[in-house]
Formats: sequence, C-alpha cells, structure tokens
Amino acid sequence: MQKGKASIEFDEAPVILSGASVTGRKEGEGPLGAFIDVVEQDEKFGMENWEQAESAMQKRAADLAMEKGNIRRKEVRYLFAGDLLGQLIATSFGTVDLEIPMFGLYGACSTMGEALGLAAMTVCGGYADKVLAIASSHFATAEKQFRFPLSYGNQRPQTATWTVTGCGAAVVGKAGSGTRHDPVIRGITPGRIVDLGARDSMNMGAAMAPAAVHTIRQNFEDFGVDETYYDRIITGDLGKVGSKILKDMLRQDGHDLEKIHMDCGLEIYNNEIQDTHSGGSGCGCSAVTLCALILPRLCSGEWSRVLFLPTGALLSTVSYNEGQSIPGIAHGVIIEKGQM
Amino acid sequence: MQKGKASIEFDEAPVILSGASVTGRKEGEGPLGAFIDVVEQDEKFGMENWEQAESAMQKRAADLAMEKGNIRRKEVRYLFAGDLLGQLIATSFGTVDLEIPMFGLYGACSTMGEALGLAAMTVCGGYADKVLAIASSHFATAEKQFRFPLSYGNQRPQTATWTVTGCGAAVVGKAGSGTRHDPVIRGITPGRIVDLGARDSMNMGAAMAPAAVHTIRQNFEDFGVDETYYDRIITGDLGKVGSKILKDMLRQDGHDLEKIHMDCGLEIYNNEIQDTHSGGSGCGCSAVTLCALILPRLCSGEWSRVLFLPTGALLSTVSYNEGQSIPGIAHGVIIEKGQM
Repeated sequence: MQKGKASIEFDEAPVILSGASVTGRKEGEGPLGAFIDVVEQDEKFGMENWEQAESAMQKRAADLAMEKGNIRRKEVRYLFAGDLLGQLIATSFGTVDLEIPMFGLYGACSTMGEALGLAAMTVCGGYADKVLAIASSHFATAEKQFRFPLSYGNQRPQTATWTVTGCGAAVVGKAGSGTRHDPVIRGITPGRIVDLGARDSMNMGAAMAPAAVHTIRQNFEDFGVDETYYDRIITGDLGKVGSKILKDMLRQDGHDLEKIHMDCGLEIYNNEIQDTHSGGSGCGCSAVTLCALILPRLCSGEWSRVLFLPTGALLSTVSYNEGQSIPGIAHGVIIEKGQM
Repeated sequence: MQKGKASIEFDEAPVILSGASVTGRKEGEGPLGAFIDVVEQDEKFGMENWEQAESAMQKRAADLAMEKGNIRRKEVRYLFAGDLLGQLIATSFGTVDLEIPMFGLYGACSTMGEALGLAAMTVCGGYADKVLAIASSHFATAEKQFRFPLSYGNQRPQTATWTVTGCGAAVVGKAGSGTRHDPVIRGITPGRIVDLGARDSMNMGAAMAPAAVHTIRQNFEDFGVDETYYDRIITGDLGKVGSKILKDMLRQDGHDLEKIHMDCGLEIYNNEIQDTHSGGSGCGCSAVTLCALILPRLCSGEWSRVLFLPTGALLSTVSYNEGQSIPGIAHGVIIEKGQM
C-alpha cells in the first residue's frame, strides 16, 4: 500500500459513489453553471447571516450527494469535512444534523484533497463501507474572515482571486461497490507544507504554486510516472498567476504541463466577463469543480486518469498581520475512470 | 475492524512508541509538573509573539517525541496535527520544518483524540510504519483568539477554564514495533457533534459534557462493555462543572463513573492554589496529560486499560457573537498497557 517515500496506492481502489455540488449565483453564471447540481439565487441560502448560509449550503450538498447515490444517511459511517473559517464553524453547524461521527479538517483550500484522501484510506482500510467528504467556502464569509467588510468596497489587484461560494460533497465507498462507471481513487500523495517566503495575501497563487510543484514531483517519483501518465493534472485554485509559476517551475525539471494542466480556479468563472481577476479560489472551488466537471468526465470515459490536486494557502489575519509568510500545501489524489 | 455502529477495533493494535510534553511555567507548577518533559519559563519560548511561541512549542514537542523514541524524522511518514487558532497557524508554522506530509485537523480541544485515532487507522491500515500525532494550545494565543486582550484584565466566572500552555506529541507505530512496555491503541470511537443548545462561552464544560456522554454511550454499546471494562475513563477538559454534568447524566443510564472518572482539566492544575477556576482546557490540556501522566501509568502497568476522551467545544467568536449555540464533540481512544 505504501508507495515510494510519501504516497499510498490502493490495491482495492475505493469508489466515488456520488458527488454533488451546490453554489451561489455567480458560479451558476460561469462556464460550469450547467453542470452544477443546485445554483442558489439567494446568497444567504434563506438564512440570517453568511456563516449560516455556508452551513446550509454544506447540509444541502451532503444530502444531495447521498440522494444522488441512493444512499441512506445511516449507511455513512464517518464524515471528513472542513471549510475556511476560524474553528470550522461552517462545518460544525452545517453537519451537526447529519448525526454522523465527524473528523474536522483544515487544509485551507486543499481541504477536499485531504478529505478524499482520508476517506479513501478509511474505506480501503476496512474501517467503513461508506464515508462522506465535504468542503465548502463562501465569498462573503471568506471576505469577512480574511479581508475587508463587503460594504467597504475594497479594490482588488489583478493577482487576487475570488472566493467561490460553493460546496462539493462526495460519497466514497469500498472497492467493488457502485456501478462500473463510478470513478475510483487509485492512490494519494499527501502534501507537506512548503514555505518559500511569499507574503502577499492578494497573490495566493504564487504562495501555493511551490507546494503544488512539490506534491507533483513527489507523485511522479513515488509512482514512477510523469505527466504522460495523466489525462489531466488539475490544481485547485492557483489561478492565472499561480498556474504560470507552476508550469514554469516544472518545465525546469523537463516536465511540460502545457497541454494537460487545468486549474479549477480557471474553470469555474469566465474571468474576462465575471471580473474575477486571477480566478476562483476557496475550498469550494476545487470541491465544486470535482463534482460538477471532473467526476462526470471520468464517469463518461472522456478521461481515464487525473491527478486532482487541491492547493491551500496557510495564513490567517493574525499570521499575516504579524508579518509571517504564507506557506502552501497541496494534497494529490489519483482518480481513474470506473473499471469497465 | 468495524465494531458496532460507529467504532473501530484494531486487531493488530498500533503501538504508542513515545510521547513528549512541553508546557509553560504555570503547568510546571501544577501537580503534573514533575512528569512534564520540558517546562519552559519564558511564555514566549524565545519568540517575538504568542503565536510563534506556540509554534516553537509544537516543534520542540515533536522533536522530543522522536528523540525519546529514538526515531529519526525520516521514519515518520505522516503528521496529524492541530491547534485552536483560526486557520491552524500555530500548527502550520510549528510543523513546516519537519518536512513531513501533513493532515491538518480541527476538533477544538478534542484534537488529540482525533489525531491519535487517525494515526492508529493509518498505521493499522498499512499506510505508514510510523506517524506523529500533535496537539497544542497556548493561554495567550487562545485568550487573544477567543476572549479579551490579556492587558484588559477581564474577570473570569467560576465556570470558566484556563487554557493550558502546552503541547503533547506522540509517535504511533505499527503493531509489534517498540518494546513490550509501550501502550497500544486497541480501538477508537470517533465522536459526532452534539448540540444541546448551550450558549455560555464561559462555561464550556457544560457545552461539551453531552458530547462526551454520547461518545461514552456509543463506546459501551459498540464494544459491549460498561465502565468496569476500564481502569479510568479520562475526559479532556470538562473541568469541575462539566465533569459533574457528565457523571450525573451517565448515572441516569445506570453507569457510576465516580471512582474511575478523571478529567485532564482537573489533573493539570491545582485549582485551589492556582486560581484556574473550573480547571484546565485547550488542545494541550489532554495532549500534555496523555504524555505526562496517562502513557507512563500504562507503561508501568499501574493501569491496564483506559478510555481517553478529549472533548471539544465548537465555537468561534463569529459564531458566538452571532448568537449561535456551542456544539460539542468528543473522540474516544481505547489505550491499553503493552502486551507483556
């Protein structure tokens, strides 16, 4: 099962039985709009404040993922979930009514990679037949947490990204469950924290790119492969700026990712029309893109194998205001099309 | 491996190869002082601010745990770690230099239970030979994050607890490694979020007690045991107030915990002399008590089996100020003395 220095290969690959995505209106107006399960027009999701809105979105995505997979709540043994907010309050209040034992995760925007990885380890280890992986973000809760009050109308530089209002939820089941079309998790490369000293919180792509590069290199080394092994290598939210850095850094190793690299932050919005500058970001960015775009393309057989690589920037307003750098982390998950 | 509705039993029980504790001065002056590995007199641990101090404390505890177990850093495949701060900044900056792939966890003060549980699952699943579990808190970072600036000199009610400045780190290895004295992790009962509507952030024991009761009941049911199965049931930081509620609630089920219940929050300080009111709290409270008191008593054979049950209160200043309740969570870990 241990593969190389830091990776895991699942001999009996866990199955992604279902995935569901719920977003706000802006995401629904983007290129993925037609593939997102629920586009809610009310950014408050019928609740009193932004944080409760994010919780409501999580609950809806979790319920929908189970419904789409025809899975009852009692069949789901554990929950791996997280969000961007201090003390994970969106998750605590979003998942309490599920009444499922919960592992709270914080990996900044890499959380969906961390959750899927632990979900696969749990199922393949025989500890559960079915588990849920959930990650969410909300533009308004994130702006409040990390930047300025919305009504302040702060100007954003072109290197800044736009936090996705969205939640992705996926049910992972043991090998052999589900249909022959369901994608499987072949392996994972958990990332380590990489800090090259980036300090600009309005340019998180640059802060996260070195961590993504590190995890990709480790993945190639551990599995004895290169970029030709994958139909796509899909980073989480490097955006325009971070994606360029990623490709430049890997080109120096002799790896050309030009044709196979995708970034969820560049898929979810039409940056030219939607004024989202460097692209989308947030835990919800990669989680929604996974459920709305990546899993369906693996189900249809359009892609055979991808490296899904959510990327996280590890900062808080406290660390930032104290002059600390912004370390990055990226968790890699190898997802393959179902075994026909 | 799956045991009952929500628990896991490890047939090949992972071993706790070593544990280390590092604390501030106040903890060193308490009843556990003589058993704590490092009592640092400088609350800033030689750093510029409180957050960096907590990071430095984490790094020192991790290094010491490996040193005590004669384990090289390169042997540790994964890290499960967390703290109380928004976006886990103490952990991000505390573990970056370890260069070990990292799973960031947030379970409020239950984090050491969550980390040990995932560590045991990872090792027993064959995904790693050795992993590190770490949890920390710092009085000053927590007061700044959750309450008032220290210089404000805020009055604290008798139901309030005192956040422990401390970090516990433990290396978990696969079954059969280590010596015959090393304690083993026999099973776990991951907790679910329980919200009975408590709203007083100065009485977190009351908010967490129902979650601890739920996990204990689940543990008894899943393993087909009762309180006589354990030498001690050791909650994380319920303090005086929460411990009384816990025992009262379980007495209604016919379970008498009077003689076997311990609470890390009541062990770590002498509440009468040290003016800590309801007791100690924070991720570091149970993590330090584990490494300084619980593991040594299992190593010596004084105890044969305990249920270690760190307890967490899932609140942030945002959720609190928005009038939300304070849900609780508690993760149970069955630790047994080494197999002689």
